[in-house]
Amino acid sequence: MVSIGRISLPGSVPPSLHHQCSPPSAIGFARFPDRISFRSSVVLRDEVEKKGSRVVIVNGKVDGLGKSECETEFDTALGNGRAGNSGKNHGVLSTVGNSTNIKWHECSVGKNEKQSLLKQKGCVIWFTGLSGSGKSTVACALSQSLCKMGKLAYILDGDNVRHGLNRDLGFKAEDRAENIRRVGEVAKLFADAGVICIASLISPYRRDRDACRAILPDGYFIEVFMDVPLEVCEARDAKGLYKLARAGKIKGFTGIDDPYEVPLNCEIVLKHTGGSPSEMAEKVLNYLEQKGFLQA
Amino acid sequence: MVSIGRISLPGSVPPSLHHQCSPPSAIGFARFPDRISFRSSVVLRDEVEKKGSRVVIVNGKVDGLGKSECETEFDTALGNGRAGNSGKNHGVLSTVGNSTNIKWHECSVGKNEKQSLLKQKGCVIWFTGLSGSGKSTVACALSQSLCKMGKLAYILDGDNVRHGLNRDLGFKAEDRAENIRRVGEVAKLFADAGVICIASLISPYRRDRDACRAILPDGYFIEVFMDVPLEVCEARDAKGLYKLARAGKIKGFTGIDDPYEVPLNCEIVLKHTGGSPSEMAEKVLNYLEQKGFLQA
Repeated sequence: MVSIGRISLPGSVPPSLHHQCSPPSAIGFARFPDRISFRSSVVLRDEVEKKGSRVVIVNGKVDGLGKSECETEFDTALGNGRAGNSGKNHGVLSTVGNSTNIKWHECSVGKNEKQSLLKQKGCVIWFTGLSGSGKSTVACALSQSLCKMGKLAYILDGDNVRHGLNRDLGFKAEDRAENIRRVGEVAKLFADAGVICIASLISPYRRDRDACRAILPDGYFIEVFMDVPLEVCEARDAKGLYKLARAGKIKGFTGIDDPYEVPLNCEIVLKHTGGSPSEMAEKVLNYLEQKGFLQA
Repeated sequence: MVSIGRISLPGSVPPSLHHQCSPPSAIGFARFPDRISFRSSVVLRDEVEKKGSRVVIVNGKVDGLGKSECETEFDTALGNGRAGNSGKNHGVLSTVGNSTNIKWHECSVGKNEKQSLLKQKGCVIWFTGLSGSGKSTVACALSQSLCKMGKLAYILDGDNVRHGLNRDLGFKAEDRAENIRRVGEVAKLFADAGVICIASLISPYRRDRDACRAILPDGYFIEVFMDVPLEVCEARDAKGLYKLARAGKIKGFTGIDDPYEVPLNCEIVLKHTGGSPSEMAEKVLNYLEQKGFLQA
């Protein structure tokens, strides 16, 4: 029932992507056929039942079955031990976090088709750094450069997303973490769609950034650290926030009374002495080129 | 400071998109220049201050200023009275929901460039209907057809999103609403990126669907109602959920002990007697073609 295959990617995309899907787990599960019809859905259920899968009722909800590492084409590359929370069931009900009664719907239009169409590989470029370090500026310059090359990029800006998706979130610790988690999840969806997704968030804590990295295949999360000293950011203070933070009018401000945890193993470091925003964007562009992301 | 322009779209895209941005509001606001440099960011702040904008401190956070209807190219078309909660400040701090200290970052790579690249217009196709009505099946068939035409589409499946972005949500009323709200917001981002975003959710309540419609420009939210009688869906019962709901083991199940509110003014109605999933997808495709979404 489960097609187990080797992913073959051209260019110099990280070798870890050449990953073989895990074999089916001990608990049986079924995979949707490429083309789902109503009839096949019914058959599917029979197959699941024949495989001895269990359905457990918890608090009046249907509870989960076994999990598989093989799912969408994008997710197939996830079986790297870092993406444990992304394993999905094919055509079976599962419980994920607070969600129950969930069936994974797979469609045969996969990431490869989208990448071929776009002549690029979807990925996430994650800009992190202090407020005023130039994340959004370089992200924008990068987006412009990619556009000129005919590549599809999309910027998820931490502040902008708070106007929509994350408008329910504030700045207390758990809200900031949730803000980053959601941006990471959305960035993953964009990458899955073949888009070069550029996320730009202070994202001060390693654990939050690493959690976003963990839901993507190895090599597809490109962390760019804007290595700009606090005093330089504070001197810029484009939003006037440092002044307010120093005056005690904003609490928990990153770099002032809340820590920024410098990335330990990020892919790219951009120093403020490293040139203009365009020149910095060029460095990221070169990285993408070298790693084969700018071709299908 | 604010460029006010008329949006010009080819084809038969809904006339409401030919919308002129509102003039600046009484409270001054500043717009980022196309290319933001560190220097210009500093200048920007001066300009905001010169315009007499106010910064209010609320609970140690910076509070908002005036709002503008003109923002990204995509959002420019939003000034239709339905998108009141999406107005953003350009280069000024604002408060949105629980979020404060938020500055809107604009990048000059806009929706038009993305659409030209993709030779299509980003939009949201929203499949709604009972469990088992065929939403995911037709969504998949549509995605396949679009792929064959060289168009970039992406499916946001209600169940699938619960494995990632919405894994923290359950099935109680407010969680279901939040599930739909987030999918609507993400769908908007995809449409903004030029992608034809296909959302597939039961989304039983009109108010939730209408809220998703309201954040998009008129005509860009295409509601597709899977008009399949309960007894047909229940007879299919591919997930076995109706059986459980009838046995009282699932509470609040749409169609059984929770209502499904039939769309009153949706763009497309697909009846189960209307042909195969591919034929249903064809109808949606024809709609997209007619409305000019399949060209830039």
